[in-house]
Amino acid sequence: MTSITLAIDVASGDHGLATTIPAVLSAQQNFPTLKFILVGEKSQLDTYFQTQKIQLSDNVTLQYCTQTVEMGDLPSHALRNKKDSSMRVAINLVHEGKADAVVSSGNTGALMMTARFVLKMIAGIDRPAIIAALPTQSGKPVHMLDLGANVNCSAEQLLQFALMGSIACESIEQLKSPIVRLLNIGSEEIKGNDLVKAAAQLIQQNPQINYQGFIEADQIFHGETDVVVCDGFVGNSVLKASEGVARTMGKILKAEFNRSLLNKIRGLIARNVFKAAYQKLDPDVYNGSPLLGLKQIVIKSHGSANANAFYYAIKQAIVAVEQDLPSKIEQGLKSLH
Amino acid sequence: MTSITLAIDVASGDHGLATTIPAVLSAQQNFPTLKFILVGEKSQLDTYFQTQKIQLSDNVTLQYCTQTVEMGDLPSHALRNKKDSSMRVAINLVHEGKADAVVSSGNTGALMMTARFVLKMIAGIDRPAIIAALPTQSGKPVHMLDLGANVNCSAEQLLQFALMGSIACESIEQLKSPIVRLLNIGSEEIKGNDLVKAAAQLIQQNPQINYQGFIEADQIFHGETDVVVCDGFVGNSVLKASEGVARTMGKILKAEFNRSLLNKIRGLIARNVFKAAYQKLDPDVYNGSPLLGLKQIVIKSHGSANANAFYYAIKQAIVAVEQDLPSKIEQGLKSLH
Repeated sequence: MTSITLAIDVASGDHGLATTIPAVLSAQQNFPTLKFILVGEKSQLDTYFQTQKIQLSDNVTLQYCTQTVEMGDLPSHALRNKKDSSMRVAINLVHEGKADAVVSSGNTGALMMTARFVLKMIAGIDRPAIIAALPTQSGKPVHMLDLGANVNCSAEQLLQFALMGSIACESIEQLKSPIVRLLNIGSEEIKGNDLVKAAAQLIQQNPQINYQGFIEADQIFHGETDVVVCDGFVGNSVLKASEGVARTMGKILKAEFNRSLLNKIRGLIARNVFKAAYQKLDPDVYNGSPLLGLKQIVIKSHGSANANAFYYAIKQAIVAVEQDLPSKIEQGLKSLH
Repeated sequence: MTSITLAIDVASGDHGLATTIPAVLSAQQNFPTLKFILVGEKSQLDTYFQTQKIQLSDNVTLQYCTQTVEMGDLPSHALRNKKDSSMRVAINLVHEGKADAVVSSGNTGALMMTARFVLKMIAGIDRPAIIAALPTQSGKPVHMLDLGANVNCSAEQLLQFALMGSIACESIEQLKSPIVRLLNIGSEEIKGNDLVKAAAQLIQQNPQINYQGFIEADQIFHGETDVVVCDGFVGNSVLKASEGVARTMGKILKAEFNRSLLNKIRGLIARNVFKAAYQKLDPDVYNGSPLLGLKQIVIKSHGSANANAFYYAIKQAIVAVEQDLPSKIEQGLKSLH
């Protein structure tokens, strides 16, 4: 990875520079040859670097812009009226060949629409899909898509997701013929809504996909499936519910350990075991989702990502560039024509 | 509850009599005036009672049938060809006024279709919805529907769910004007699929519903919302994913505590704290979902429920009968006409 350059949309997301810049600094330490172009409004960047007394290395270039896409902006508004936003300028850098990938924790809809407009879709793919690797019981991650980019999907789109997910998983995990399943509310063939039934028909006819039938949401985290395909509304809901449950369980346990002095002592004794268990599920480590189907690489970070989580999104960008995911998907899509 | 009679479909579900009968025996001990009609095939019941050496009290009647609905049966097949199944006969008992409610852990689709055919829908409701109370951080349960009865919903149906959920929550929790929210993948009004946007329009126009906008899935377990409305495909996926995450976290923690002798000792010390925390989230306690919208009471238990969970489904039936949920919903639905 001697010559990888990443365009970082430092201004977007819930926390802006306060999380993106520390993440870039960490990435710089761990990947000293990595180059960065940081895109943000001049006044914001200047103020931040002055107050934080940060000295940037030669591998970091600043690219000023005059706008920032807000989390509540309509995607079409961002596309039309924010042509000099940090998001748009960062995407342009990839399009112009000045960066190999862009990382942004900005407004998902705006990121998707702008990336699609500027970078274009791979032939055979209608719209980008958000894929993420999630932790499982077996220790082997499961790749799930779409996680929120497409909220009204067709069966053909689910087929495209299955194919892209399979290719991405094969490439990222170095795994031959990953097991692909379609998320459904029952494992029997009669179950499901019209969309899932139609998609199952299409996917099982495609010889490139190692399709093994339906999967119910409680099985996602077992680690026996490599790729789980679903529409973006369901995928996003399942992902957020999972995060919510994990956090709720953590809070209830914490409250219980704080209930009495005796419990506090018990908690201190058990603390290291919790930490070890938590690290296996740490959502920060799984932050950073490629927008699959675009001709070039865009990594979407959670809007609420902290610095550690944004660092992992940067790492995802490195993997996607090294693996050259868009080319692999382009080659793999020949079966769709 | 001096004269409540429950029809129990003892033969259905993944485990059949092995879980339903012990649950009935526990319920009998705790609610001595409760009457049961147990419906199952004669040979199965006879064999079970003989091998388990169980003596039934006078409050328990056996009702023999000749068929059992399998978990993989098509609902239409069950309805047409299994007219003497334990599920159908138990539902008939409610229709004939011989029982106040039926409890079944059988095939959801078959239970719904048969109940709808035999018991009929309340005027203004198209199809039954599965509602369940789920644990939250705040300790106050959240009622969520639909959890899998309707996989292709219309906006009108989501409005019906909102109204029924609000009435049921008000009645069960003795809560005035419960807060109702619509599950979406963002909290901004521009977010969501076509279904959710159309449903939001309908629900916010209804003065009977204390509608407070969208909720994202990670907020469900915060305990700040009383009723969460969604289509059955999404609801079922969210529920199962939540269970899957809770179980995965439990397994990872357990593995960590078993990793070494020192960790095992730490685990023993912390054990009671875990147990107390776990009880707050114990899914068994939340088993048993009314099929709302039917003219009479049907309680759906998880297909894989153990005896303890099935016991809680029986308790749900008692609450639904005491509260007379169908009448309350019928009265409350006047706003829809």
